[in-house]
Amino acid sequence: MNKEYLDLAIDYAKQAFDCNEVPIGAVIVKDNKVIGYGYNQKEKKQSVVEHAEIIAIRMAEQTLNNWRLNDCDIYVSLDPCPMCASAIKQARIKNVYSAVSNLDENNLKIITNIFTKDHTNPEVEFKTNLSVDKSKELLNKFFEKQRNN
Amino acid sequence: MNKEYLDLAIDYAKQAFDCNEVPIGAVIVKDNKVIGYGYNQKEKKQSVVEHAEIIAIRMAEQTLNNWRLNDCDIYVSLDPCPMCASAIKQARIKNVYSAVSNLDENNLKIITNIFTKDHTNPEVEFKTNLSVDKSKELLNKFFEKQRNN
Repeated sequence: MNKEYLDLAIDYAKQAFDCNEVPIGAVIVKDNKVIGYGYNQKEKKQSVVEHAEIIAIRMAEQTLNNWRLNDCDIYVSLDPCPMCASAIKQARIKNVYSAVSNLDENNLKIITNIFTKDHTNPEVEFKTNLSVDKSKELLNKFFEKQRNN
Repeated sequence: MNKEYLDLAIDYAKQAFDCNEVPIGAVIVKDNKVIGYGYNQKEKKQSVVEHAEIIAIRMAEQTLNNWRLNDCDIYVSLDPCPMCASAIKQARIKNVYSAVSNLDENNLKIITNIFTKDHTNPEVEFKTNLSVDKSKELLNKFFEKQRNN
């Protein structure tokens, strides 16, 4: 785990914030090099698929010209949803480092089952709440702005 | 449920088969009109995201210029993976009609939790094994071809 990449994921989350999107960012790292990154663009692109993680995965796949993101880690500013968790698993990403957790009991169970109990792909290590304050502040600011509009 | 659309999803699966992709197809219907369709292109595009359902969802979103696929149904030639199930849920698709089930106990639990227990979006109705023979035959033919190569 390299805190710099977590900060970078939060920087991308800020780009989403500036576009009035829920501020979530993601960075994919292999051999200490960033090979993919993204921030949430659901509203701009009008697509549920355009989450930060999916955008970062597609970029990393293009960088490697391979859907197998072996020995890659993903840094995210917020825990992944089940869609992104399953994409991470299927892409064979090794570690998920998340700044802050927002999972309720059901979603935590879903994510855990996806990462550890589906044996068609290697197990994913998932660590969260690694940079709570910075990421939470951004999310709180976003939802406050939403309430005021 | 309209069997014609299930047959159409299987027709798209055949297109995947012809491209040496795992033969899976999907069709999205609103008001008795097809507004999105797709077939698996994971290998061609070298991306774990390029599942039939995701491609169909993106097309339907573009058709409606909206990520909210309210009152839409998706017809699939095989049960969705957790990534696609979560995308279906987040897109607010109403019904999933699947030709054949391939879910083990863990994945069935994940899918069920995604469709019914996450209350941030409306519940998704999921019916499977609606056209087992046709879809299974295609899948078996594909894996036989794989073994022979």
